[in-house]
Amino acid sequence: MESSAILTPSQLPYLFPSKSNRKKAYPSWPCGKPGTSRPTRLHCQKMYVPGFGEASPEAKGAQNLHNFFTYIAVRIVAAQLQSYNTEAYKELMEFMDRHSLNDGDKFCAILMRESSRHKGLALRILEVRSAYCKNDFEWDNLKRVAVKMVDDSNTSIMRDYVLETSQAESEK
Amino acid sequence: MESSAILTPSQLPYLFPSKSNRKKAYPSWPCGKPGTSRPTRLHCQKMYVPGFGEASPEAKGAQNLHNFFTYIAVRIVAAQLQSYNTEAYKELMEFMDRHSLNDGDKFCAILMRESSRHKGLALRILEVRSAYCKNDFEWDNLKRVAVKMVDDSNTSIMRDYVLETSQAESEK
Repeated sequence: MESSAILTPSQLPYLFPSKSNRKKAYPSWPCGKPGTSRPTRLHCQKMYVPGFGEASPEAKGAQNLHNFFTYIAVRIVAAQLQSYNTEAYKELMEFMDRHSLNDGDKFCAILMRESSRHKGLALRILEVRSAYCKNDFEWDNLKRVAVKMVDDSNTSIMRDYVLETSQAESEK
Repeated sequence: MESSAILTPSQLPYLFPSKSNRKKAYPSWPCGKPGTSRPTRLHCQKMYVPGFGEASPEAKGAQNLHNFFTYIAVRIVAAQLQSYNTEAYKELMEFMDRHSLNDGDKFCAILMRESSRHKGLALRILEVRSAYCKNDFEWDNLKRVAVKMVDDSNTSIMRDYVLETSQAESEK
């Protein structure tokens, strides 16, 4: 347990407030990232995650959420339009039928070039996804739900397995 | 601006520490969720997000992350095995070729039933994804990256559009 005696900046957030941390898009503690000059691998107490190159699991997760936020913003704008501007609502729905929302940025870029009316819709979607991501989305709740989901799934997978094998054994 | 005078519990977290909040898997403030007895729609200052029924955008996001964590756990375990247990590594790789990792729980459940050696791998993956999600994954960083991504993308989409249209106009 020698390694536990080495204190890393991530263990001492009160000693290392790390301003630069807030400006960087990627983790300040680049576990297992090749090509960095600091000898982090040896002292890093986090598990080595291969295959993310210069990016990070957090950046990959954020990219998924980014497309998800665009999807949500489109749903929000559509729901708002449905009640008071049915013409714009129909136009947006019709556009959604023709274009995939899997790549949110591409969707917005094409929508912006469709017509001047569509451009207004696109700008509104951009604004809504920014506001949603910053103010409405419950980040703490996301973590709580995700942690609970992992615990519940692990329990359920192991319980199902034990039930199955004990039944099979009692049938023998 | 009448609505801004109504203070909701989510605006006063210090007055409403809300113990139940921590136990619930879904947001305690169910904006726009039909079928709830509290008249939240009228007083809620968050945007109405349609189409999530009894779940929430946070739960949907957590489900995506859940599968992502399983994928990461498999990568971590594979990287660990590669260096000191090449036989188990090959078995895991061979299993991954045959089974999709899109549904992480299903992947683990099938892996557990493959053989007793595979069962050991599956248990390790379950353990690693739990530890990774709780200790290693940088949740604050996820939020920071996602917010930055939305801002950068919005700027870039609008800049590209303006550049394109101003070029087209100057060519006329």
